Amino acid sequence: MSFDRTTFAWDSFIAALADLEIITDRPQVAKLSQDYYHFSPILQTQLADKVGDLVIRAKTEAEVLRVAQACSQQGVPLTVRGAGSGNYGQCIPLEGGVVLDLSAMNRILRLQPGMAWVEPGVKLAALDREARPLGWELRMVPSTYRTATIGGFIGGGSGGLGSINYGFLSDRGNLCALRVVTLEPEPRVVELRGDAVQQVNHAYGTNGIITALELPLAPAYPWAELMVTFGDFATAAQFGQRLGDADGLIKKLICICDRPIPQYFAALQRYLSGDRPLALVMVAEQSLELFKELVREMGGDLCYEKSAFEASKGISLGEYSWNHTTLHARSVDPSLTYLQTIFPHDRDLALVHHMHQHFGDEVPMHLEFIRLQGLTIAAGLQLVRYTTPERLQAIIDYHEDQGALIFNPHTYTLEDAGRKTVDPRQLAFKRTMDPQGLLNPGKMRSWSPSTP
Amino acid sequence: MSFDRTTFAWDSFIAALADLEIITDRPQVAKLSQDYYHFSPILQTQLADKVGDLVIRAKTEAEVLRVAQACSQQGVPLTVRGAGSGNYGQCIPLEGGVVLDLSAMNRILRLQPGMAWVEPGVKLAALDREARPLGWELRMVPSTYRTATIGGFIGGGSGGLGSINYGFLSDRGNLCALRVVTLEPEPRVVELRGDAVQQVNHAYGTNGIITALELPLAPAYPWAELMVTFGDFATAAQFGQRLGDADGLIKKLICICDRPIPQYFAALQRYLSGDRPLALVMVAEQSLELFKELVREMGGDLCYEKSAFEASKGISLGEYSWNHTTLHARSVDPSLTYLQTIFPHDRDLALVHHMHQHFGDEVPMHLEFIRLQGLTIAAGLQLVRYTTPERLQAIIDYHEDQGALIFNPHTYTLEDAGRKTVDPRQLAFKRTMDPQGLLNPGKMRSWSPSTP
Ligand SMILES: Cc1cc2nc3c(=O)[nH]c(=O)nc-3n(C[C@H](O)[C@H](O)[C@H](O)COP(=O)(O)OP(=O)(O)OC[C@H]3O[C@@H](n4cnc5c(N)ncnc54)[C@H](O)[C@@H]3O)c2cc1C
Ligand SMILES: Cc1cc2nc3c(=O)[nH]c(=O)nc-3n(C[C@H](O)[C@H](O)[C@H](O)COP(=O)(O)OP(=O)(O)OC[C@H]3O[C@@H](n4cnc5c(N)ncnc54)[C@H](O)[C@@H]3O)c2cc1C
Repeated sequence: MSFDRTTFAWDSFIAALADLEIITDRPQVAKLSQDYYHFSPILQTQLADKVGDLVIRAKTEAEVLRVAQACSQQGVPLTVRGAGSGNYGQCIPLEGGVVLDLSAMNRILRLQPGMAWVEPGVKLAALDREARPLGWELRMVPSTYRTATIGGFIGGGSGGLGSINYGFLSDRGNLCALRVVTLEPEPRVVELRGDAVQQVNHAYGTNGIITALELPLAPAYPWAELMVTFGDFATAAQFGQRLGDADGLIKKLICICDRPIPQYFAALQRYLSGDRPLALVMVAEQSLELFKELVREMGGDLCYEKSAFEASKGISLGEYSWNHTTLHARSVDPSLTYLQTIFPHDRDLALVHHMHQHFGDEVPMHLEFIRLQGLTIAAGLQLVRYTTPERLQAIIDYHEDQGALIFNPHTYTLEDAGRKTVDPRQLAFKRTMDPQGLLNPGKMRSWSPSTP
Repeated sequence: MSFDRTTFAWDSFIAALADLEIITDRPQVAKLSQDYYHFSPILQTQLADKVGDLVIRAKTEAEVLRVAQACSQQGVPLTVRGAGSGNYGQCIPLEGGVVLDLSAMNRILRLQPGMAWVEPGVKLAALDREARPLGWELRMVPSTYRTATIGGFIGGGSGGLGSINYGFLSDRGNLCALRVVTLEPEPRVVELRGDAVQQVNHAYGTNGIITALELPLAPAYPWAELMVTFGDFATAAQFGQRLGDADGLIKKLICICDRPIPQYFAALQRYLSGDRPLALVMVAEQSLELFKELVREMGGDLCYEKSAFEASKGISLGEYSWNHTTLHARSVDPSLTYLQTIFPHDRDLALVHHMHQHFGDEVPMHLEFIRLQGLTIAAGLQLVRYTTPERLQAIIDYHEDQGALIFNPHTYTLEDAGRKTVDPRQLAFKRTMDPQGLLNPGKMRSWSPSTP
């Protein structure tokens, strides 16, 4: 039964779910069919016309089961949405159908020291707000933590603030369990625990609708926020590596931006004099004094410092880091796009420096230091002065040829991003969870209706 | 004024300090002049006859100042003692004199989230007992945590349980401040903060008497304790490296012992069947489920598991790790001694495997995985079936030639251990803190009465 959105009997479909919150208003549906894909000029052209047919805002697992059943029985594509802040069109429906918005399914089910049980629509900042008085917080959050949902983070995100300690969501231990609804004529709820959670992690909702999550929490240190400028980028980058490798200094964020990126941070200009390479860091208050010894040792200029308390009341530097760097840059110069890079482990950062010199102003340097399988690694979210798709691809190819892995953000399929191959576990899981291929069709392009 | 213990006027010296607790009873003085140097057959011969002249048990900084003054004005050597559990004769007086025992100077001055202020005689376990109800604990402790003092740990220790997260005491951030008393005719109290604390860290009390310490605390996760056995040592070692590199799994101890070491653990025999390579681990309860996935992946046999609560009531596996492994081994076979090794960073552990095969049963393998400047490293506390000093030296030389750094435990001087050179900062500091060279003479052998 092939879905034809123009001839589909929407009225009866909607009538059968009339007690649920359903949005049919076209402008609103259009809005709720988009994410931040426009950060990529490539995706801009590919996804601009993609829109859902209607939006259903489910609030409970029972409602999710009903929507899944209706879609399965009538062959309607279903694409899940959290807050719609993804960068690769993850929640954009390629073939129309239902956008299942779970942002109102947002109860914190249970909190105990070190562990949280939540519904998928819980905003990351809302969870932290509840957990922090108990001394705990999420291990890692994207810079969109104020608006992003936990379901969307696991469904489409990777890591962020805190990844300098705990790695990425794909690292064993950072996600304990998921409840996932199938897309079948009689949908089931499947509980995944242990390594099995990785079947659904970062699968763009193509192989199950997450209805509950069990996550480990991290100790909520009071995080001071500081800015340090340096005379040159090489020293700033080295500072990032040294801080990442300093096991006695507790940190949550090590963001290094070369000129001219700091100029894009309008609200921070009054703290920055001149146009110098900049480190944005979050450091535990207990480590502040010794952190400043590292700054001193590396010749940095500490130009901004807020205690955790002060930082909680105003600007948070976290919202200038990770892909917020790109957001602020594009608000000044919309011709900018970005890369996602993992540089090889190298305490001298040779390849980073090579790329810095090779591309110069065409690819302004932005590094986020993270832990990757026990090593302090420079991840790059470098900006790119976009000209043509061919030039962008040439820049990407050069990085790959030199050994800097690109996790291509200019693609909406799972296979072309990240590891650039299909994840066989995720594909196999889709066959059992969504045999009709109705969940977010087109995103796992390896899937086909052929026999498994 | 040269000190001659046989002609020195002890009676008047003691009389002037008669209100302090002074021990002159020879057997007790002998006992309080020793540590665990006998783990080394080399040190056994060199230090067996070393003894103090009397022991003074000071309880306050004021009392310490009076003893320092008396020793300085009368030219008497002064050697500080905590609990006397060092392994290299750190607290053994080489030239007699006063043993200043600070084990009764044991007040916890102040505890707040993330930081502790303590007197030097505080036992490490006592500090943890007070801090844990607040959710905090010491970042790192030696396996002698039940008896060792914090002053002795900073004065003569390096690291231990927790070093897999925070590195060693010498890593910036793990020690915030020290109050240190000089040995001068008018002794001063010097406060050291920031990097300056490293002048006194692991200096064997040769350049100041620590009277208070400010230390950062770590989140007190509930630590489950587990034993996992493997079919062969290579897999057990690889498991240690993988666990160390698993950023999403929270751990405090990764101790790997090859055959026949597990047989030396009498109280653990009933949990171990056969003689298999063994991992002793402490893992945060929130990480247990995913930890077991790693065990499964590596084909380990989980043969023992205690929750944090259960572990708090009986045996703690921590007291089989680090140099307690040597303690238990020597209690069965006193001909055993040990090495202290830092293997180069290598996720394949090639040099570990080489040494394992090269020395076989002569050097039973015992690894402690630690973090060292951002890298998961295998430290070795391998046992040695001791035969002769020449053979021991040949084993040490072979390790060094192959790139496995030996931190020689068979020497009582600072210069011959560790880095094998004098630490110029510590030497320079001694000149300002102890111009007469009366503090623990002979341990910093580079010091001489010549002009600085
Ligand atoms: C300025 C900016 C900065 C960013 N910084 C970061 C960053 O630091 N790190 C990072 O990882 N990302 C970052 N992102 C991307 C994005 O914000 C995050 O990944 C965020 O966590 C996504 O959450 P969301 O609720 O908006 O998800 P959405 O965009 O709504 O959904 C993301 C994907 O998850 C799926 N999904 C949503 N809910 C469910 C569910 N319940 N079950 C199954 N699948 C589901 C969707 O189908 C979609 O494929 C950034 C984006 C922007 C615009
Ligand atoms: C079985 C066993 C296992 C061990 N495991 C470990 C381990 O895992 N990690 C580790 O690092 N060590 C280990 N050790 C060595 C030792 O137990 C620790 O280093 C311990 O912390 C020393 O504390 P202490 O109070 O016994 O010090 P002591 O032995 O009394 O003194 C150690 C040194 O510090 C100096 N000192 C003591 N107090 C002061 C002060 N107030 N001011 C200045 N100097 C002072 C002394 O002069 C001496 O040089 C082990 C020893 C044994 C026997």
